[in-house]
Amino acid sequence: HRHHHLSAGIIGAPFSKGQPRDGVDRGPDAIRAAGLLLKLQQQGCAVKDYGNLEFEDVFEDAPVGRVKRARAVGGANQRLSEAVRAVKRDGHTSVMLGGDHSLAIGSIHGHAAAVGELGVVWVDAHADINTPLTTPTGNIHGQPMSYLLRELQSKIPVLPNFSWIKACVSAKDVVYIGLRDVDPEEHFILKTLGVKMFSMSQVDQLGVAKVMEETCDYLSAKVKKPIHLSYDIDAIDPSVTPATGTPVVGGLTYREGVYITEHLCQTGLLSAVDLVEVNPLRGHGEDGVTSTVDTAVALLLGCFGRLREGNHSSNYRLPEP
Amino acid sequence: HRHHHLSAGIIGAPFSKGQPRDGVDRGPDAIRAAGLLLKLQQQGCAVKDYGNLEFEDVFEDAPVGRVKRARAVGGANQRLSEAVRAVKRDGHTSVMLGGDHSLAIGSIHGHAAAVGELGVVWVDAHADINTPLTTPTGNIHGQPMSYLLRELQSKIPVLPNFSWIKACVSAKDVVYIGLRDVDPEEHFILKTLGVKMFSMSQVDQLGVAKVMEETCDYLSAKVKKPIHLSYDIDAIDPSVTPATGTPVVGGLTYREGVYITEHLCQTGLLSAVDLVEVNPLRGHGEDGVTSTVDTAVALLLGCFGRLREGNHSSNYRLPEP
Amino acid sequence: HRHHHLSAGIIGAPFSKGQPRDGVDRGPDAIRAAGLLLKLQQQGCAVKDYGNLEFEDVFEDAPVGRVKRARAVGGANQRLSEAVRAVKRDGHTSVMLGGDHSLAIGSIHGHAAAVGELGVVWVDAHADINTPLTTPTGNIHGQPMSYLLRELQSKIPVLPNFSWIKACVSAKDVVYIGLRDVDPEEHFILKTLGVKMFSMSQVDQLGVAKVMEETCDYLSAKVKKPIHLSYDIDAIDPSVTPATGTPVVGGLTYREGVYITEHLCQTGLLSAVDLVEVNPLRGHGEDGVTSTVDTAVALLLGCFGRLREGNHSSNYRLPEP
Ligand SMILES: [Mn+2]
Ligand SMILES: [Mn+2]
Ligand SMILES: [Mn+2]
Ligand SMILES: [Mn+2]
Ligand SMILES: [Mn+2]
Ligand SMILES: [Mn+2]
Repeated sequence: HRHHHLSAGIIGAPFSKGQPRDGVDRGPDAIRAAGLLLKLQQQGCAVKDYGNLEFEDVFEDAPVGRVKRARAVGGANQRLSEAVRAVKRDGHTSVMLGGDHSLAIGSIHGHAAAVGELGVVWVDAHADINTPLTTPTGNIHGQPMSYLLRELQSKIPVLPNFSWIKACVSAKDVVYIGLRDVDPEEHFILKTLGVKMFSMSQVDQLGVAKVMEETCDYLSAKVKKPIHLSYDIDAIDPSVTPATGTPVVGGLTYREGVYITEHLCQTGLLSAVDLVEVNPLRGHGEDGVTSTVDTAVALLLGCFGRLREGNHSSNYRLPEP
Repeated sequence: HRHHHLSAGIIGAPFSKGQPRDGVDRGPDAIRAAGLLLKLQQQGCAVKDYGNLEFEDVFEDAPVGRVKRARAVGGANQRLSEAVRAVKRDGHTSVMLGGDHSLAIGSIHGHAAAVGELGVVWVDAHADINTPLTTPTGNIHGQPMSYLLRELQSKIPVLPNFSWIKACVSAKDVVYIGLRDVDPEEHFILKTLGVKMFSMSQVDQLGVAKVMEETCDYLSAKVKKPIHLSYDIDAIDPSVTPATGTPVVGGLTYREGVYITEHLCQTGLLSAVDLVEVNPLRGHGEDGVTSTVDTAVALLLGCFGRLREGNHSSNYRLPEP
Repeated sequence: HRHHHLSAGIIGAPFSKGQPRDGVDRGPDAIRAAGLLLKLQQQGCAVKDYGNLEFEDVFEDAPVGRVKRARAVGGANQRLSEAVRAVKRDGHTSVMLGGDHSLAIGSIHGHAAAVGELGVVWVDAHADINTPLTTPTGNIHGQPMSYLLRELQSKIPVLPNFSWIKACVSAKDVVYIGLRDVDPEEHFILKTLGVKMFSMSQVDQLGVAKVMEETCDYLSAKVKKPIHLSYDIDAIDPSVTPATGTPVVGGLTYREGVYITEHLCQTGLLSAVDLVEVNPLRGHGEDGVTSTVDTAVALLLGCFGRLREGNHSSNYRLPEP
C-alpha cells in the first residue's frame, strides 16, 4: 500500500558530548549531503527540514561522579526535547539525525511529551542502559535508557541540567535488537527488569523476519502505541558502517538493517526515528564513510515506505506506442 | 544423484551495446580463462565450446525514441537466438556467457524456439522490464523482458532489427529473485501482470531455501517445463562481485547465489543458462575482478551438478594397503 | 545460567608439519597475545595454561608412500595425546591451540583415553578424512579423521611413529559442519560410512540454529557423551579469517561461527576444544591477521560461556545513590 500520507520532520542534532570522539556532530550534515531530503521526496514523502539545533557552549562541565559533561548533555537534550515536540505538534514523523546516542534522552522525552505512552525499538550493538553509578566510562551515550525508564529512577542520582527530565518509558514497552556488547551491570538491569531483547544470538537463531514479527506483536499486544525507533548505526556490522565511534564485530547485515525499517514502516505506527552515531571522521577512509552514510540514508528511506521490490504511484498508466 | 548425463554447450557472446560501459564484452573470455571448461569436465560434465559469436558492426545506429543502439542489439540477438537453437538441437544444456543482459532476448528466444514453453528464473538486482517507452536510460539491457513477455506486446513500438522477435514467454512463467533496484514503471508492470518475484526483502523474510522451493513449485505447478536461468552477476552483492556495470548494495551472498544454482540443477529441468554482466574492466582492482569471475564460474559449476558437500563417481572404490 | 564451574586447561601446540606452510606454529602465541586468558578469567572461567608443547626435531622424515612427515606428525601427536590426558585428569575442559589440524589425532586420542567414548563436532571447510592412500597432497592435516575412525582402519597402512594410535571414534559419533571443499575420495568415505554432515548447502538450507539443534540431538540421541569440538578456523569465511593456509570462499559468517560455540557450551557436554590452522603469516596484511586471531578468541570465549546478550554474576546488586 502507498504511503503518500507520510511526512518527515527532520531535526539535525550536531552534538558529540555524550562521548569523547570528535566528528559525530558532523552526522546530520553528512546524511543530508548524501541526498536524504530529495530521495524522501522522490519516493512521495513530504519533508520539512527544521535545520540543525544550536547548542549552548558549557564552559564549566566537570565530571559529576563518574558522569562526564552532564551539563552539556542535559542542556542539549532539553532543547532537542522541545524541538521534537514541535515536530510532532506539526504532524510529522520526527526524524532526529545525531549526533551521539545521548540524544535519545531528549528525542524520546519530547516524543512522549507530545503523544503519550510509546513503544521503543532500540537497534544497537549496545544496551546504553548504564546508570550514572554503573557506567564504566562516564560517557552519557552509554546511559540514555537509564534516565528514561521509570523502573530505574531510584538508581539515578541528581545531575546538573537533568532535572527537567521525566522518566517516560516503561520497561515492558522497550525492545532491543542487535545487542552484542553489553556490560555485566547492564545485563543485570535488563534481566532484572525483564526487558525484551533480541541479541545477535537471537537474530541468528530466529532470523530477522521472525524478530520483527515478535517485536511488533510484543509492543502491540495490548494497545497499539506510537513507535519510537532509536537506531544506532553501530547496530550494523562494521564492514558496512565503520564510520562510528564504538564499532563491534558481528553486527546486522545491511539487508537485516533495512528489513527492520521496512517492517516497522508497514506497521503504520512509526512516529519518531533517531539515526545516531554516524561519525564521518571515523571509519577506514572515504569508502567507509560513504558506505556508512549511504546506509544511514537507506535506513531512513525504509522508514518512509521505500520497498526493495519497488514502489509506484497509484495513478500511473503505462505509455503505449 | 549423479549428473553424468549433463552436457554443456557454451556460447560466448562478447556484446556490450545494450549498455554504455566498455568491458562487458570481455566477460566470456574472462570466464573461460578462470577454468570453466576444465572444471566442468572434472566434475563429470561433457562440454562443447561453440566459441564466441561475431557480431556485425552497425555504423548508423541513432537512438529510436529513447532506445539506444537498437539495430546492433537486434542484430546480435538474432544471431544469438540461432546459436542457442543450434546448441539445443545438439542436445546440450545451453550456456550463454555475456556480454550484457540485452542478450537474454536472443537467448530466451532461441531456447523457446527449440523447446517450446519455458519457465524463466531471472536472478538480478534489476527487473530489466522497462519498455522502449518507459526506459529512463535508453539502454536495452534494462528492457529485455519487455520484448519477451506476450502480455506487454501492445506497449512495444516497432524498432529496427527487432521484427524477427516473437514474444515467447508468459508472465505467469517468470520468477524474479534478488530485486532491489526497480524503477516505478517497472514496479507497475510487475504488479499489473502479477509477476512472481522474490525481492531481497522476500529473500530476507523467507530465506533462500524457501525461495527456491517456492520458485520451483510455482514454475512446475501445472506442467514441468524446461527452465531458462538468466543470471545477472549483479544479483550478487558488490562486496563479492564488484566487476559489473550497475552494482547495487544489499545483494545475495555468495552462498545464496550458489544455492540457487544447486537447487535448480537438482530439478533436472535446467535447459539453458545465461551468465551476464561480468565486466572485467569494472570493480576495485584485480581482487574484485578475480572474485567476480570466480563467482561466475562457481555459479555455472553449481548449474552442472557441483555440490558443496562433495561429489564422487559411482564406480569409485577405496584403496586398501 | 552461569558457568562459574567452567575451567579451561590450555595447551599450546606450535606444530606445522602436517602441512607445508610456515607460520601456523605461531598460532598459540598469537591467540594468547590477543588476550585469551584474561578474557576467559574476566568472564568467570578458571584458567590454567599448560604452556606450549615442545616437539622433537625429526631429521630424517622422508615421505612414506604419499604421506609427508609421518614421523614428525606421529611423534608430536603422541606428546599431545599425553598432554590432553593430563589436562582432563586435572578436571579442566581441554583447549588445544594449534598448529595445524593433524593435531586433532593426538587431541582426540588423548581426550578419548581420558574420558571414553566421545561425540566429535568437526567444524571445517574440509573433511580431513583422506587416508594415506587417497590423499592428493600427502599433507597429514588433510587426513586426521582417517586415523581416528574405527571403520577406516582396514584402509590405513602402517606409518612410522603412528603405532601408538588407537582408532577411538565411531563414524556415527561424528558431525561435520561447514564443508565446502571435499575431495571425491573423501565424499565417497563420508557417504559410505554414513557420516552426519552439514555442508554449507545444509547451513544455507536449515540455518545455523537448526543445524546446531540437529547436531546435538544426533550426538545425544542415545547417550550423552562428552563432546570434542575440533574447530578449523578455515570453516569461517576468508573475508573474516584470511590468515589460514587453505582458505575457501563461501564460509560461515562470524556470527554463525560464534553461534556454534554458544550452543555447544550450553549443552554442558563440551569437554575438549581444538582451535587450529590460525596462521599469522598468511592473510592480507595486519588487519587480516588481527581479524583472524580475534575471531579465534571469540570462538573460544563462546565455548566458555560468553553470551552476546551479556553475562552477569549471580551476586551482583545495582548501586543506589
Ligand atoms: Mn547507542
Ligand atoms: Mn552502540
Ligand atoms: Mn540484468
Ligand atoms: Mn542487473
Ligand atoms: Mn581442518
Ligand atoms: Mn580446513
